Amino acid sequence: MKKEHLITPGIQRLLNDKNYSAIRDIVAELLSPDIAELLQSLEHEEAVEIVKLISLDKFPEIFSYLDNDSQILILQDLTIGRLKNVLNEMPSDERADLFLRITPKLKKQLFSIMSEEERKDVEELIQYKENTAGALMTTEFAKISPEISIGEAIEILRKTALKRETIYYIYVTDEKDKLLGVFSLKDLIMAPAERAASEIMNTNFIKIQLNDDQEEVALLFKKYDLLALPVVDSLDNIHGIITVDDIVDVIEQEDTEDFHKMAAIETIPEAYLKTPFHIVAKKRIGWLLLLLITYSISTQLIKHYSFALESVIALAFFIPMLSGSAGNAGTQSATLIIRGLATGEINFKDIFKIMRREIFMGLTLGTILGALGFLRAYLMQGNPFLGLTVGYSLALVITIATFIGSILPLILHKAGIDPAISAGPFLTTILDITSILIYFQIAKVLLNLVQ
Amino acid sequence: MKKEHLITPGIQRLLNDKNYSAIRDIVAELLSPDIAELLQSLEHEEAVEIVKLISLDKFPEIFSYLDNDSQILILQDLTIGRLKNVLNEMPSDERADLFLRITPKLKKQLFSIMSEEERKDVEELIQYKENTAGALMTTEFAKISPEISIGEAIEILRKTALKRETIYYIYVTDEKDKLLGVFSLKDLIMAPAERAASEIMNTNFIKIQLNDDQEEVALLFKKYDLLALPVVDSLDNIHGIITVDDIVDVIEQEDTEDFHKMAAIETIPEAYLKTPFHIVAKKRIGWLLLLLITYSISTQLIKHYSFALESVIALAFFIPMLSGSAGNAGTQSATLIIRGLATGEINFKDIFKIMRREIFMGLTLGTILGALGFLRAYLMQGNPFLGLTVGYSLALVITIATFIGSILPLILHKAGIDPAISAGPFLTTILDITSILIYFQIAKVLLNLVQ
Repeated sequence: MKKEHLITPGIQRLLNDKNYSAIRDIVAELLSPDIAELLQSLEHEEAVEIVKLISLDKFPEIFSYLDNDSQILILQDLTIGRLKNVLNEMPSDERADLFLRITPKLKKQLFSIMSEEERKDVEELIQYKENTAGALMTTEFAKISPEISIGEAIEILRKTALKRETIYYIYVTDEKDKLLGVFSLKDLIMAPAERAASEIMNTNFIKIQLNDDQEEVALLFKKYDLLALPVVDSLDNIHGIITVDDIVDVIEQEDTEDFHKMAAIETIPEAYLKTPFHIVAKKRIGWLLLLLITYSISTQLIKHYSFALESVIALAFFIPMLSGSAGNAGTQSATLIIRGLATGEINFKDIFKIMRREIFMGLTLGTILGALGFLRAYLMQGNPFLGLTVGYSLALVITIATFIGSILPLILHKAGIDPAISAGPFLTTILDITSILIYFQIAKVLLNLVQ
Repeated sequence: MKKEHLITPGIQRLLNDKNYSAIRDIVAELLSPDIAELLQSLEHEEAVEIVKLISLDKFPEIFSYLDNDSQILILQDLTIGRLKNVLNEMPSDERADLFLRITPKLKKQLFSIMSEEERKDVEELIQYKENTAGALMTTEFAKISPEISIGEAIEILRKTALKRETIYYIYVTDEKDKLLGVFSLKDLIMAPAERAASEIMNTNFIKIQLNDDQEEVALLFKKYDLLALPVVDSLDNIHGIITVDDIVDVIEQEDTEDFHKMAAIETIPEAYLKTPFHIVAKKRIGWLLLLLITYSISTQLIKHYSFALESVIALAFFIPMLSGSAGNAGTQSATLIIRGLATGEINFKDIFKIMRREIFMGLTLGTILGALGFLRAYLMQGNPFLGLTVGYSLALVITIATFIGSILPLILHKAGIDPAISAGPFLTTILDITSILIYFQIAKVLLNLVQ
């Protein structure tokens, strides 16, 4: 799997020995993603040396597998010839991503050596908002007129020599680029050479609008098992296609965002180890401070009930158990719903079904835990009323937690807010306050406490 | 998007009116996944009616998009002819999944109408353990001998008429099925018809072993942007291929498992709304009980320090703030690491880098939150020593939480245990106990409390 970790020291030794032909042989045996990983594992000067040994036609693909930081570092040391080649040959979506991250000065330099057409392509792609279909798409795809025959279509494909992942569907358009139909490379091979594209094309196909969200794109890929999806504007003119390899990244990225939100971390755009310390700290401290301030409410609340603690100090023993269990039950519910919403399994219209189900779930879980809590408190302190206080509070708090945990994500989702923020710390804090309030109110009644 | 929700009532009305030709027209306009969704949204008898209106050659694909429960329900009402057709035509990986979920009796019935060859195919596929490459693969793929010419290969492909997602690579094997090389449909179109397969095939390709885990499969797809991956045994003989549409499901399933584990829910195999109430309750109660018992330790610990509470009742006010903040900081760290491990970004070898980083992170976050905690407690109670107790405890507890939160997942991962269980409630409970211990120990010293 991780070949590059094994070969990096060997390559470094060969570089020291200036044994370039041996390096060339090794690199020729590696696949592009492995060479990209190798380059990233080397010192910058070493990487630049290796790049010189890679053939001109193989390099753009390797370059496109580098992360953006490495791309920016390496392209500053490329010869003009190699640079031109890279800028022309790399996939248009990844080229646009690169341009989004470079300085205006570098952008100007790169533009100056690119053709008018390529420049326009970059300018178009970088205008789309992040996380939209437009920002994900590549502008390389096979496009033919409806009257073209299958034999001619094969010839056109041979000449344009598109990249691997963009050739599996052929799009049929009119002279204004309006998308009329689509057929697959398989259809092309199956059909007789003299048939016209319009005869074999499928007119009942899935497409997406430029400004649609990438989450929606991912749902379409999952539902229809697509390899590529055409992106159109409001006039149905095709602007590009999204390929399945990008969707794998989108799903991973969306899930990572949800994981981070559920752990009260603002989204970190790059990989954890590559993000500078102060950025990670900044992404973490905001929520921690906000939650600390929210805990002040719990603090104030317990102070408000300190008369109860003064009479029955043992009440303090069970606060962590109570608010902890509430947090756990609430987090379970919230996670089930948030994940169901993310995978498209749950919709807002299921809210009543979910409410009914989670109320029963809360009562079931609450009754079991409440009974145990009663026993625990009673056996520990020998006071049946304290036992009942803990038991009833647990039962009630868990029922409420299960209910809030399941409904909150649905409401946030409906309101257009990402429901992932409603699990984890945010919910836990709300439930903390709720449990303290319920606990001391029940205690006041059952233990006859007066202020 | 959700066309089927709109058309279901219309279809039901047409069924009532016995207007079958209108239904046929509507169904002909829909894509297979949409028809599958429509069937699932109807009553069983209605669905059976609709199935009769679907053409024989279109039905197997639609059937393969149904969930397993609907498949089992519907196949019992199929005519023998349609049933045979479905069993022969549906993708072999999905057929094997179906056979894994039916009763032995039904299995025997279905086997009796299948050919010897198809039966053997099912028998082979169902033997592989869940979540391995063998269980994911399909046995339909294009296989040719090395001496075959490109022109002949195209003819073979035309005749075998493989399904859409399995045709994009052609595998070159010797007479014993040993995998020699691979080329893509694009290579096929680009190459001259008279060239031999052995001349254009790529011998430097990615493959995976039958028993390798599906997580590893997903990592390979992501790294190499694959559309399909050949599955081989220890002799390098090819047994099947895994296609990218299945990987999208694998990634989603793996992430869902992690989400559930991090929320202390045992993995629920089916979708939330489809899982019976008592199963969900069972998956939730185990962890909740375990955590409740763990909270008993906190309870016991606070009781142990009740002498401190009796002298300074205000100590009780800050327990939720302290253990809550510890839990939040720990969860943040754990989530960053768990997600990094899942996406392959972080490896165990990074442990020292991560330890160093997270200790500094903990000190930074702890200092800021500790200073605020000091202010909060001092201003609230007017006691500088209480303020210092809260402040120091917060700082220390957050440093420890950040450290444990980041190291625990790495250690579990190294030990072969899924690190996802180390975030969320499990970690929170450990940190709960730690914070109470630290808090009261610091209080004892700073507030001069004696037992």
